[in-house]
Parts: sequence; structure tokens; C-alpha cells
Amino acid sequence: MENIPRYSFHDDYSEGAHPSIIEALAHTNLSQQSGYGDDEYSEDARKSIRNLIGTDEANIYFTPGGTGANLLSIASHLRPHEAIIAAEPAHIVGKEGGAIEATGHKIITEPGIDGKLTPEMIQSAFDRSSEFAYQPKAKMVFISNATEIGTVYNRNELAAVAGICKKLKLLLLLDGARLGAALTSSKNDMTLNDVYNYTDIFWIGGTKNGALLGEAVVIKNPSFGADFPYHMKQRGALLAKGMVIGIQFKTLLQDDLLFRLARFSNSAATEMSSSLAKMGFKLWAETESNQVFPIFPPALVQEL
Amino acid sequence: MENIPRYSFHDDYSEGAHPSIIEALAHTNLSQQSGYGDDEYSEDARKSIRNLIGTDEANIYFTPGGTGANLLSIASHLRPHEAIIAAEPAHIVGKEGGAIEATGHKIITEPGIDGKLTPEMIQSAFDRSSEFAYQPKAKMVFISNATEIGTVYNRNELAAVAGICKKLKLLLLLDGARLGAALTSSKNDMTLNDVYNYTDIFWIGGTKNGALLGEAVVIKNPSFGADFPYHMKQRGALLAKGMVIGIQFKTLLQDDLLFRLARFSNSAATEMSSSLAKMGFKLWAETESNQVFPIFPPALVQEL
Amino acid sequence: MENIPRYSFHDDYSEGAHPSIIEALAHTNLSQQSGYGDDEYSEDARKSIRNLIGTDEANIYFTPGGTGANLLSIASHLRPHEAIIAAEPAHIVGKEGGAIEATGHKIITEPGIDGKLTPEMIQSAFDRSSEFAYQPKAKMVFISNATEIGTVYNRNELAAVAGICKKLKLLLLLDGARLGAALTSSKNDMTLNDVYNYTDIFWIGGTKNGALLGEAVVIKNPSFGADFPYHMKQRGALLAKGMVIGIQFKTLLQDDLLFRLARFSNSAATEMSSSLAKMGFKLWAETESNQVFPIFPPALVQEL
Amino acid sequence: MENIPRYSFHDDYSEGAHPSIIEALAHTNLSQQSGYGDDEYSEDARKSIRNLIGTDEANIYFTPGGTGANLLSIASHLRPHEAIIAAEPAHIVGKEGGAIEATGHKIITEPGIDGKLTPEMIQSAFDRSSEFAYQPKAKMVFISNATEIGTVYNRNELAAVAGICKKLKLLLLLDGARLGAALTSSKNDMTLNDVYNYTDIFWIGGTKNGALLGEAVVIKNPSFGADFPYHMKQRGALLAKGMVIGIQFKTLLQDDLLFRLARFSNSAATEMSSSLAKMGFKLWAETESNQVFPIFPPALVQEL
Repeated sequence: MENIPRYSFHDDYSEGAHPSIIEALAHTNLSQQSGYGDDEYSEDARKSIRNLIGTDEANIYFTPGGTGANLLSIASHLRPHEAIIAAEPAHIVGKEGGAIEATGHKIITEPGIDGKLTPEMIQSAFDRSSEFAYQPKAKMVFISNATEIGTVYNRNELAAVAGICKKLKLLLLLDGARLGAALTSSKNDMTLNDVYNYTDIFWIGGTKNGALLGEAVVIKNPSFGADFPYHMKQRGALLAKGMVIGIQFKTLLQDDLLFRLARFSNSAATEMSSSLAKMGFKLWAETESNQVFPIFPPALVQEL
Repeated sequence: MENIPRYSFHDDYSEGAHPSIIEALAHTNLSQQSGYGDDEYSEDARKSIRNLIGTDEANIYFTPGGTGANLLSIASHLRPHEAIIAAEPAHIVGKEGGAIEATGHKIITEPGIDGKLTPEMIQSAFDRSSEFAYQPKAKMVFISNATEIGTVYNRNELAAVAGICKKLKLLLLLDGARLGAALTSSKNDMTLNDVYNYTDIFWIGGTKNGALLGEAVVIKNPSFGADFPYHMKQRGALLAKGMVIGIQFKTLLQDDLLFRLARFSNSAATEMSSSLAKMGFKLWAETESNQVFPIFPPALVQEL
Repeated sequence: MENIPRYSFHDDYSEGAHPSIIEALAHTNLSQQSGYGDDEYSEDARKSIRNLIGTDEANIYFTPGGTGANLLSIASHLRPHEAIIAAEPAHIVGKEGGAIEATGHKIITEPGIDGKLTPEMIQSAFDRSSEFAYQPKAKMVFISNATEIGTVYNRNELAAVAGICKKLKLLLLLDGARLGAALTSSKNDMTLNDVYNYTDIFWIGGTKNGALLGEAVVIKNPSFGADFPYHMKQRGALLAKGMVIGIQFKTLLQDDLLFRLARFSNSAATEMSSSLAKMGFKLWAETESNQVFPIFPPALVQEL
Repeated sequence: MENIPRYSFHDDYSEGAHPSIIEALAHTNLSQQSGYGDDEYSEDARKSIRNLIGTDEANIYFTPGGTGANLLSIASHLRPHEAIIAAEPAHIVGKEGGAIEATGHKIITEPGIDGKLTPEMIQSAFDRSSEFAYQPKAKMVFISNATEIGTVYNRNELAAVAGICKKLKLLLLLDGARLGAALTSSKNDMTLNDVYNYTDIFWIGGTKNGALLGEAVVIKNPSFGADFPYHMKQRGALLAKGMVIGIQFKTLLQDDLLFRLARFSNSAATEMSSSLAKMGFKLWAETESNQVFPIFPPALVQEL
């Protein structure tokens, strides 16, 4: 099999960070800053995000990882008896260690199509949640873009999801662990400003997009936003040296670095899937962003 | 007041990391590693810690911060109806955002003396916890070394605390956010090996000892140790790129760096307190490690 | 000591219920009713309470016990990062098995005077809660009337507590396990209507006032009120045969039975304390309602 | 439709209790007893249950309702990162207000066959729970007998479930809300002693079997058993006047009353389903105990 290009089959986080992030950490290392995310670098990163989403209103915080970003987004917005709707492949359902249940909330699942939720599925989950008396009240909807299987939402799909949420008075949370990859996908027709307008809370992934660690959580409702750091502190997600994440996001948001990296990983993925296709392998899902799920014969899996 | 030496009144985490940590992050940046703390660097750091504590048994994990280290240590070792005993100044009581209560556990507090618990206080808290039927069962004791007011436990004090814990079947947790400072204090007569032997679980602070972020949690009981990463994942404390912390601890534990830094901050603190003493200021507590709590006249506080 | 009148030193719940409650259970036993508290008897009991508090607005629910009434009142009104202020002797602090912490909330305690909170104490607890960044936000105040040591709030005291709560935007919860005894105390100058007006949520104790089990929770805020049964169901406090409690409260609220029983237990307590006084014994606290805390010499305690 | 026998389409708890339970409450009403379930009547009820299960070892406690019995059984036996396996129709999945998630635990669901779990389903759920690193560890299995759709487990089925649980080191919890109906079903070939031997914890329903309220929880492991009342107190499930439930179970267990009532409701259900069959209606599931789920044409549903 000499003619196969060699790819690492490790995941997005088998390496460190983009070199310019290491440089930034190095030359800011001795500047004295306030702790807990009140530093200049975090503030600069917030400014860049506010420019991209086109508002000065939103509250923006940086969490060390994605599981924390999700559990904090949900626990800070829901009452104990309220539940969240998600698709079966959603990260919070089967990949985050029961983090949502650990905050006391039930996840109401729908199968999903290509990893996405449709308005029909949201309506059906909502109806099931009120079928019997005093069952957990559906109050929030969870989607990921790019989804956990690498597909992306286009504007019509997201607008439809946002529409049913508004109609049913559900909050909309978008997990953006791979938002960079989504917004630079050939299938994408949205901007970060659209993402902000269609959702109530969303986050931009750093860990899977060139950072050592860190995600940026963007909160629309000012009262939830103002209280968010209390939740972060209570859950152990408020770093003393918050600037460690702020510096990385400041760097990722300069000269479009975050999106350039995402574009690069998307094209690498596309290239990989076409080579695989040429070689006659099928894909579990079409490659729309930076994830490829080839279906290999057992023998080859052995060999790899 | 020109003749006062200038000190920053910022806290331990107003700056970044020790330069050699940044270097280490830089030249390991492109090496491919497994995620979630299963990387070579974390493994090397674990080896160094096992050498210092003199056992190959202990489970060792790296958490992003101290609040997480404490809530994970407690929630992973207690049943829902079990409580933890701590001194009033303890970090978990008034500085961690109610993180322990958020995991469902009550903290039984004693005033403490110089920030420390005595066997008498532990006995008294234990007795109060069983005074009325079905009140939360005291099952664990929390101490910090150095304490939150900068004092340190000597061997006799720690042995006495460990003794009453054994007698009352209480687990002993030691918060080592400033363990480096404690073990290099002029008052100290213990090694890391002693700390391991006297406790059931303890952690070594990185964030306040030269790292960008990270604490190393050392767990004696193998069954709690084996399950610990499940708790980390569930609480959002398991970093995808775990090597980010592993590299820092590997570096801190090479050539005694962690303790050299601690020794330096201790002597700076001692120097500061003697200058303050010369100038006629009183201290809230004697300076035994790297924290100084001078009592200033309001006027001066204004000026500062 | 032949001349001491014999009293049982058992507690309020060593016997069953008032006979008329057993009768009521008997002759309603075969009537078919809806479950979960939507039965006629519960509705009648609600009507009686609404008459006493002078409003048709309030939501009223019946819980099996007092610990449940408190944990539900608190968990349904607070966000995860919000805390409750209480006096040291408060039932939720040391007598309810850590039920409040088990819902994730911290209790900020003040010593209390005669078991009561003063505006000064509430202000001081509130200030402490915001002394360090991101500590649990004080959002609610817990008081009991009668208090856990048998004293009662008069109108001025309750008005002052309500005033500081309004000023600091704190919700006021009144534990009325012994509200009957309080409102029939010689020290009392309030009605149930006053209690409703001064608080955000309070409950009327049945278990300690002639019922087999059951407390009536009265909620002012309609949105919290509408969602309350969801919390009850989630915590296991929503009885299938809710009428079991409804029937008892309907009976207790007919012909003033609840208050007649309370008056009787108050006078028995007063009689007991005066006999004890005559015999030269001191009381731990003056007897203002139906609890007597005599200080006996060890020898006598042995004999009893 | 004159020739249809009239049945109430209310549920099991639309009426009160069996008359002899009311009598028992009446004539024990004034006896002085200890609180919190330490009364003679509860002790007598425990003796009767120990006779039926053939051991003096088991710890037995009485909870006010079934949701509480389930959440207490689960929360007292699992660690925070452990999960429970259940069939989709299981009461804890869709009928208990998210009570299990509110204690922090994830429920891993399998479709179930006739409301039952098979060893294959348990193995498959167990495998899924360990497919990805650090997902909630399956540690307990939940079954109901009779199931939520009225079917019953026979000895072979329960033995097979118990076998796979032992093999996979899973605890087995049996919800016995309708255990009386199950053990008196024509399909049943087990005794209460068998139920005790095959499970780790189970409960006998009183509320749906002639009591006003109350379920009896039987715990095999002595250490979990000893701590259970702490959990009950903490969750608000420990009644001050515990004898209220003790008296009812003492009565239900005298002269086989519990099983006589169950037998009666089973035969009423059988009679109902055969009449319905004669009339040409289909049933959703065969009637094996005391629940009937007829499939009616919409028109008739209107009329009813």
C-alpha cells in the first residue's frame, strides 16, 4: 500500500498549538496582569470576537475545555426541572462523561439526521417532554456546528432550528468545538454574526483549532452573562491565570489565523477523502469539514 | 515613602510561567502524543513525583486548577451523605465559589488556629456531626499546607492530624496549592514522602509555583485512583491536550525547579516582612512561607 | 419528686394525629379523586389557606415533610451559584441531613439572637458573600417562626427582616413547622395574612400541629409557583394519593382546629415551664410557644 | 354500550386505602412511639418482611413514595460517575420527573421487550458504556416487576438477568411498585424470597397495593443498608411520624392482605380484558397482572 499518502490517524489534539501561539505565550510571559480573565489579552480577544459578531453587548468568557463549556452553558441557563434536547450523536450525549446529568439535567434525545436536529425532531422531543405530568420541561436545544460527524448547518437549517426554538420558547445552545471548520466549509453560507443572531449562547473552539487549550463562550442574555463567572468558579473552570487562554484567542483572532487553520484542516480532510474514494473506500458521512470517517475492511484496520 | 522597597501587591498568578516552562512548551509543541494525560510528558512527570513520594503505587492526575483539584478529590471519595471537616480560613470554605456544596457535600467548619486544624478540633467537629440523628457523616478532613494564611504544618502537627483521622476512620485531604512553599519553609521538617504517608490524597500546586496552569493530584487508594479520570471528565477537568500540564510538571520537577522557585518566593516574603517590621508595621500572621499579610494604617492603604 | 406533674419528654411527633383527622381519612376513604394533589380535599384546603392569607393569587402545595418543604423551596427559587442566609440554630443548618447542600447550595450562617436573624446579621452575611470575587451570591434568607428554640418573631422584627431583604433583593423564606404555635403565642401580634405579605415563600406545618404528615407550602411568585410540582416530582415529594395530605389540612383548617391545637400546646408548655420555674430550674430560652428547654442538673437527667 | 361492565378508568391511586388500614391508623393513633421509623409498628412490619424473604440480615426502610424509593436506592448505591441501565418504558426513564438525573446519574436505556430487559440488552448497554473513554460506568441495572406495561418476570428471566449482573459486577435494583400483582400473577413462579435472592435491592409497593402511601425498601448489602436513613433524611424522605407507614405495612402483611388485594386486582384486570376481547378490542400487551392497555378506536375514546 505504498501509494497511500500517509496521514496520522491521531485526533485533532495529538499535537500542541500553532507556533504563533507559543510565541505569544513567550513574549507576554512576564507582563503583569489581573487574574481570572480580567487581563488585557482576554479583553483584546473579546474585542475581536465582538467585532466578528457585530455587537458590543455579548458577555464572553474563556473556559479550559469543551465539556466545561457545555455543562456551564446548560447549568447556568436551566432551572433544576428543565431539560435539554439533543441529537443522539451529540457530544453531550455520549462523549462527555455524563457531565450534563451530573449537573442534574436530563437530556431528551432524538436520532438526528447527519448529526443534525430538524424542527420536526425538536417539536417531537418537546411534545414527548410534556406527554406525562411533571416530566422535565424541555427548555433548551443543543446543536453542534460542525456536527460530531463532520457535517455543517447551512443558513436555512439553522434559521429553521432557531425559529422552532423561538416558537416553543426554547433557548438555543450551539457547541462550536469545530465552528472554525464549519464556517470555512464549502457547504457553509453563514458568518459568526449569523451564528450569534440565531443562538442564545454558543462557543468557539480553541482546543481543536490551534490552541493548547480554551474555548470562548458567547452569551447573549446579559443577566446569564453577568453571572457566568460565578458558575465557572463554582465548577472549577475559572483559571487563576486566565490570560493563558486570552493570549491564545487574541492570537487566533489576529490576521484571521483561526479560520486559516480551519480552512487548511478542511482541505486536508477533503484531500484525504478523495484519495480514499479513489482507492474505493466508502465514507460513513460525506466530508463537509475537517473530519473523515472512512469505512475500512477489518483486515486493513488490523494493519493500521 | 521613597525608602520603601517596591513590591508588587499583585497575587501569585499575576505573571505567566517560569521561562523554562515556556521553552519546554515550545520545543515539545510538534511532538505527537496521546490525549487526556496519556502522553509521555505526563508519564515522565508522574515518574518524578513517584520518586519523591517513594512509591510506584500512587495514581497521579493533572487538573487545570486548584478548585477543581479540591472538588474532584472530595466528590470522588465521599458518598452523598458524607461531609468534610475544614478550618474557617480553608480555601474550600470561602474562596472556591461554593464548589464543594455544588457537588452536594456539607463542610463542617472549625475556627482553626493560625489556619490549621488540631486533633481536638477534628474530634469536636466529628462529635457535632453525630450529635443529631442522620446528620451528614464526617468522613474526610481538609487541610492546606502552606495554610491560607501562610503558616506551615510541622511533622508533629501533621502526624497528630493523621492520627486522629485514622482513629476516627476519616480520610485526610491535603491542599498543596502552596506545598512547594511549605516544604521549603524554615519551619518545615518534612519531605514529600512524609506528606504522602500521612495523607490519603493530596495535590501539588503548579499554578502558584511557576506553571501557567495545573495541579498534580496524588491518590493513595487504588480504587479511587483508577476511577479519578471518570470524575475529571464528568466535571470538565480532563484536558484533551493533557500534555500541556504534563510538560509543565515534568519541567518543574527537573533539577528541583519547583522547590527552587518556592525557596525564592519564601525568601522574598521573609525579606519583605522584615523590611515591613523595620518600618514598624505589624503582620497578621508570622511569615512562615511565601505569603505576607501586613497590617497597614488606612491612610497608607489609600496611597497604595 | 412526687409533686412534679408528669410530662412526656417525647417530641411533637411521638403520637399520631388529632382524632378528627383520622375520622376525615376514614369517611373520605372511598371517594374517587384525581392523584398528585389535584383532588377536591386539597383544593378545599387551598381555599381555606387563601382566605386566611387574603389572596386568590398564591400557589399552594402539600409536601410530606418539613425537610422536603425547605429543600424544595430553596432549590426551586435559587440558581446554582446562589446561596441562602440562615441563623446557626436554623433547622436547615444542623437538623436536615445536609439537604440544602445536597441540592448544591451553600448556607451562609450568622449566630442569630434567640434563634432569630436581625437586619444587621443579614447585611453582614450579604457583605461577606460579596467580599471575595465569585463567591456564592446571597439570594435568599431563611427564618423559622416559631424559631428552633421556641421564640417567635413579632411584627416589627419580621417587618425589619422583610425590609432588608427587599433592599438587598433577597427572597425571604419562612419555615412554619411551628407557625401555628407562633401565631397563637402570647408574644405574637401577626396574622397569617401578615406572614404572607412579608415573605416570598413560607410553609405551614401540619406534622407538628396535629397531622399524621404534611406541610402546606405557599408561594407568592406565580412563575415559581407554577413550576413547583415539577420540583416536587423530581425530588420524590409528590404523593400519588395527594389527597392524604389535602384531607388533613382541610380538617385542620376547619373550625380553627390548627390554631386551637397550637394554643393548647402553647399553654401546656407555659404551664410546664412555670412548674419548672417554681421548682427552681432555669430555662435555656424563655417559653414563647410550644417548646421548653429546661436546664436540669446531671443527676436529674440521669433519673429521667 | 349498555352491556359493557362499568370500570373506573382512574389509576391505582384514585381511592384511599383498604379499610383495615384506616382502622389500624385509628386504634394505634394515641400510642406513643419513637419517630423516624424506629417505632414498634415499623419493626413489626420489618419482621413480617424478613420472614417472607427468609433472612434476618436485610435492612428495611419505608419511603413515602416510589420515585423516592428509586432515587434513594440509586443515589445511595452509586458513585457520581456510575450509571444505571434501564428499559425505555422503565418508570425512572420517563415518569419520575428526571429524579435520577437530578441525583447526578445517567440512565443508559435499551428498548426492552414487553417492558423487560434481557441479558443481551444488559450486555449491549454495558459495552456501549465502555466504548469511549471515561463515559459513565454502568454499575447498576433497573427492572420493574410487574413491568410498567403489566408483564411479569418469571424465575428463568430474573435468574438470567441476575446472572449477567453478577458476571459484569452490576448491582440489580427491582422496582416493586406492583410486586404484589407480579407475585400473584398467573404467570408468576417466584416467591418474595426468590426476589430477595436474585437482587441487591428491591422495594415492595404499598401505595399501589392498598396503602395510603408508602413503599418498603429491602437492602441486601449491610453497609449500604446502615447508611440508608442518612440518604432518606437528606432527600426529605424520612417522615417524623414514620409509624404512619409502618402501621400500614404491618397491616398489609397480616393475613396475607397485600397479596389478597393484589390477587383481586389481577382477576379484575383479567376479567376486564376478556370482556374487552369478547367485544373485539385488541390489547397493547397481554394482561399478566393488574394493568390493562386496551386499544380503542378514537370515537370510543371520545365517548369515554
